[in-house]
Amino acid sequence: SRVVRAARGSAMTAKGWPQEAALRMICNNLDPEVAEHPERLVVYGGSGKAARDWASFEAITRSLTRLDGDETLLVQSGRPVGVMRTHEWAPRVLIANSNLVPEWANWEEFRRLEAAGLTMYGQMTAGSWIYIGTQGILQGTYETFAAVAAKRFGGSLAGTITLTAGLGGMGGAQPLAVTMNGGVAICVDCDPRSIERRIGHRYLDVRASSLEEALRLAYEARDARRPLSIGVEANAADAVPALLRMGAEIDVVTDQTSAHDPLMYLPLGIAFADMAAERDKDPEGFTARARESMARHVEAMVGFQDAGAEVFDYGNSIRGEARLGGYERAFAFPGFVPAYIRPLFCQGKGPFRWAALSGDPADIAATDRAILSLFPDNEPLARWIRMAGEKVAFQGLPARICWLGYGERDLAGERFNDMVASGELQAPIVIGRDHLDCGSVASPYRETEGMLDGSDAIADWPLLNAMVNVASGASWVSIHHGGGVGIGRSIHAGQVTVADGSALAGEKLARVLSNDPGMGVIRHVDAGYEDAVSVAAQRRVRIPMREP
Amino acid sequence: SRVVRAARGSAMTAKGWPQEAALRMICNNLDPEVAEHPERLVVYGGSGKAARDWASFEAITRSLTRLDGDETLLVQSGRPVGVMRTHEWAPRVLIANSNLVPEWANWEEFRRLEAAGLTMYGQMTAGSWIYIGTQGILQGTYETFAAVAAKRFGGSLAGTITLTAGLGGMGGAQPLAVTMNGGVAICVDCDPRSIERRIGHRYLDVRASSLEEALRLAYEARDARRPLSIGVEANAADAVPALLRMGAEIDVVTDQTSAHDPLMYLPLGIAFADMAAERDKDPEGFTARARESMARHVEAMVGFQDAGAEVFDYGNSIRGEARLGGYERAFAFPGFVPAYIRPLFCQGKGPFRWAALSGDPADIAATDRAILSLFPDNEPLARWIRMAGEKVAFQGLPARICWLGYGERDLAGERFNDMVASGELQAPIVIGRDHLDCGSVASPYRETEGMLDGSDAIADWPLLNAMVNVASGASWVSIHHGGGVGIGRSIHAGQVTVADGSALAGEKLARVLSNDPGMGVIRHVDAGYEDAVSVAAQRRVRIPMREP
Ligand SMILES: NC(=O)c1ccc[n+]([C@@H]2O[C@H](COP(=O)([O-])OP(=O)(O)OC[C@H]3O[C@@H](n4cnc5c(N)ncnc54)[C@H](O)[C@@H]3O)[C@@H](O)[C@H]2O)c1
Ligand SMILES: NC(=O)c1ccc[n+]([C@@H]2O[C@H](COP(=O)([O-])OP(=O)(O)OC[C@H]3O[C@@H](n4cnc5c(N)ncnc54)[C@H](O)[C@@H]3O)[C@@H](O)[C@H]2O)c1
Repeated sequence: SRVVRAARGSAMTAKGWPQEAALRMICNNLDPEVAEHPERLVVYGGSGKAARDWASFEAITRSLTRLDGDETLLVQSGRPVGVMRTHEWAPRVLIANSNLVPEWANWEEFRRLEAAGLTMYGQMTAGSWIYIGTQGILQGTYETFAAVAAKRFGGSLAGTITLTAGLGGMGGAQPLAVTMNGGVAICVDCDPRSIERRIGHRYLDVRASSLEEALRLAYEARDARRPLSIGVEANAADAVPALLRMGAEIDVVTDQTSAHDPLMYLPLGIAFADMAAERDKDPEGFTARARESMARHVEAMVGFQDAGAEVFDYGNSIRGEARLGGYERAFAFPGFVPAYIRPLFCQGKGPFRWAALSGDPADIAATDRAILSLFPDNEPLARWIRMAGEKVAFQGLPARICWLGYGERDLAGERFNDMVASGELQAPIVIGRDHLDCGSVASPYRETEGMLDGSDAIADWPLLNAMVNVASGASWVSIHHGGGVGIGRSIHAGQVTVADGSALAGEKLARVLSNDPGMGVIRHVDAGYEDAVSVAAQRRVRIPMREP
Repeated sequence: SRVVRAARGSAMTAKGWPQEAALRMICNNLDPEVAEHPERLVVYGGSGKAARDWASFEAITRSLTRLDGDETLLVQSGRPVGVMRTHEWAPRVLIANSNLVPEWANWEEFRRLEAAGLTMYGQMTAGSWIYIGTQGILQGTYETFAAVAAKRFGGSLAGTITLTAGLGGMGGAQPLAVTMNGGVAICVDCDPRSIERRIGHRYLDVRASSLEEALRLAYEARDARRPLSIGVEANAADAVPALLRMGAEIDVVTDQTSAHDPLMYLPLGIAFADMAAERDKDPEGFTARARESMARHVEAMVGFQDAGAEVFDYGNSIRGEARLGGYERAFAFPGFVPAYIRPLFCQGKGPFRWAALSGDPADIAATDRAILSLFPDNEPLARWIRMAGEKVAFQGLPARICWLGYGERDLAGERFNDMVASGELQAPIVIGRDHLDCGSVASPYRETEGMLDGSDAIADWPLLNAMVNVASGASWVSIHHGGGVGIGRSIHAGQVTVADGSALAGEKLARVLSNDPGMGVIRHVDAGYEDAVSVAAQRRVRIPMREP
């Protein structure tokens, strides 16, 4: 099967950098270094795809190569459906992935439509062409474990053991995020390749051949206050209850198996090698068994919580699935967003990320230095940038991520654009973010769980976010359904804007990188968060209901 | 309570015509001549509102008055939540109304959020500020009955009797649409004010005091092949079965009670005067009774079909509700879209509408003449324009609607803009449309029922439609959930673009009024409609999957 990789360097085949950037980034999403299953166009998150099929991929890249600077390509669930004349401030690509009319927004109808070739699952950054490999989630995971450390363990995970499962595209960031915070991690996965891959990328330190060995290694490292991450091959629905029964001394428990899609979670009693065949044979039976297994898995997580551990849902809907599987107390532990992330959202903070179209790691090193000099007083940010520079192996185009807030992202974007203009960087920089951001997602089991005013399920915000990004000069904008937590459970939007060194790009970046995080501020002001109200007042975010 | 009415004339209080237009159009939506219940901000369709509450209305109008030509106001379910700096090609207002994450997209959660002051029901053109009164639907209704006539009765309804119910904001257009097609209509409504209002507006001819009298008048007119519309006060769930039992000679049966919202349908056994009180006392019990009554109502409609009548669902979800009410054969008759409207959608045809900001009917008369001269060969269009000029009483700002297709709407828009520029019109023209359009809605019980490829529930299209309108220079753009057919059952988008006579407006109109109907063409090409494929080929609509 064909191998796709982004072009590198400062010469383009498209008619402008925004088009060229889209072209390179869809290819980069499918780079074997980046994508989980490139031969099936699957980038990450179980079945999150970059394009519907290879014919669609060909037509997208062909159209991008020909697209003029006042034209816009429309992509419907990974298939290019039209090219329309717009203007130079308009995005070059508009994307809507996996969206369904709510009453039909369930896995059964989605799979029927997918099988008929009419839709695809876009996850968050798979179908919107800004996935940058495991680093993308590493920073968020690092931030989350740092917040856990601050809340419960005096600012460091040194001397603690974290138990989790799932070492896939997103979950694979967990072991490194824990060790970056000084802790010990036991990571369960049923797929030996996931374990090997994380060891290969230096995200995971060692592999244990049994739960007993994993525990022994963990206790040793914990007692020496030495960071260590340990992979162990097992079914989490089996291993987590077993560890609970063994009385394992675990301080933090979470999970990132692909629970949001029950067809991707290995049920108890099925060997990993038979998983695909069993799923294809009887998807409904498989779903029921997966949910029952998740019920056992979550029951054991609640058991650890009852025993005093810090336990949280890491955004994969496992609580919802476990409840469907018959376990009543599934929501006994919180989601990670209300527990740790929402205070950041109130400041418009979120996963600012960028990639160097040159392909040269030196360009990222230069932007790293720029970030350090732009925000000299932000010590946690500086620590992250330095550690990332040391520990993160790039996948595909060199890229970086750090969380920046309202009033910061635009400064960074304009600086990068100046660096492209001055020739300090060898080629343009692509600036985007995850859909998991402060003002771009409605997801009652994750980003908008437990909002202060009860507005968890209101989905106007991500749609306004997408529209305001289209109106502000983003290079491509996407609206997706079901990313992260599964079909029916989220609506979210993304934007990517290209810093090509032109004055126009500078103006677009200034607007997009203010308005986009500005959505986070106004969303949380509207919900009544005092932190957001004071950020809005300090930084002059305009809220009509509060103007005289 | 306060009375709102749009300003008239060629002087503005806002800083630009797009802003002024939005200001006048939200006020026009609430003009007592236009709105069904202006004191509650309800414009039409049961509970479709223009703004969340009066404080929101004040803040919207205040913000519009101050808004600069490179700023954009964000409206979340009728409340203004932000003002952001964009650019002069960007819309001045972006609106998202009533959107919910799918798993929570049901009436119960919606009403909980509405009661908490967190959302409102936007219907289609209520919350997007381009409702123009009953004329808006009159043209669509006229087209539909004309198609019924063409299909079954040799091109005219002369000599036939149509039975329908619901004389509200939308349904009130039915009697005039039937008589314009030469037929006789019996129209049942339980609210005597709805009947009086339609007689007042000359949409309904006479009122009968009983079903027997209505039938007698109908037979007389039918036998004389004389057009006549007859209102009769009754509960449709009672009257339609009664007429069936009486053996009434009915040729066409449909319904436009507000069935999409079971709290707005009068159940059997409740007097109209007690409706509000009973609903407030026990909303759940009321809902169940309404659905049971709809089951009886639809059962009688199917009875008429079995007896040979032409029967169709007129887009109010009554089949879905009747099935919930326990009636199995509810979907025995089709929706009006697959039956009559889809062939028009394939050509990018849909409800093009405009209003004269001058307030002077002479401006509409001039645009009527312009339409007649632009499309001299389109006889059905000319017939409509002439009849509308005679029979339609304006409500609020003078306005006109006619269905135009891809390649026609942009011609009309640019012509109007030229007429503003030359001074032939006294003030700018606002050009918009219903959300019920060829490429702007996903609604499996109505606009996208029975798509050729089974893609009824795919909601990417309206989102792409909204984004491409934002990217093309529309003055305001909206994304709504649940209009027409109720919460959970539709996603749809709207655009309004102002012809202020400037060159920039001309460029924007050229793009918006091509790209917007272009979405209809590509949506139907993608679904495999041959008509759409040939329109795309003839008019050079660009479809990447079909380019070499
Ligand atoms: N917290 C966040 O910010 C965030 C962000 C994105 C995605 N997610 C969610 O995290 C989950 C994981 O995402 P991913 O991209 O890593 O998915 P993935 O499919 O790439 O990886 C899932 C891993 O889980 C393993 N697995 C499946 N069933 C198992 C079982 N019973 N026992 C042990 N291991 C099992 C698989 O072998 C695989 O390695 C998804 O549900 C995703 O939606 C969370
Ligand atoms: N076909 C279309 O293109 C289209 C467009 C928009 C709306 N609709 C749908 O049509 C329906 C009507 O819309 P509307 O704006 O006229 O609503 P409305 O609320 O203004 O009017 C509904 C009318 O139905 C009457 N009614 C309610 N229950 C009744 C009963 N049991 N018997 C007799 N009369 C009863 C009410 O008294 C009222 O006059 C809605 O469901 C709407 O969603 C259809």
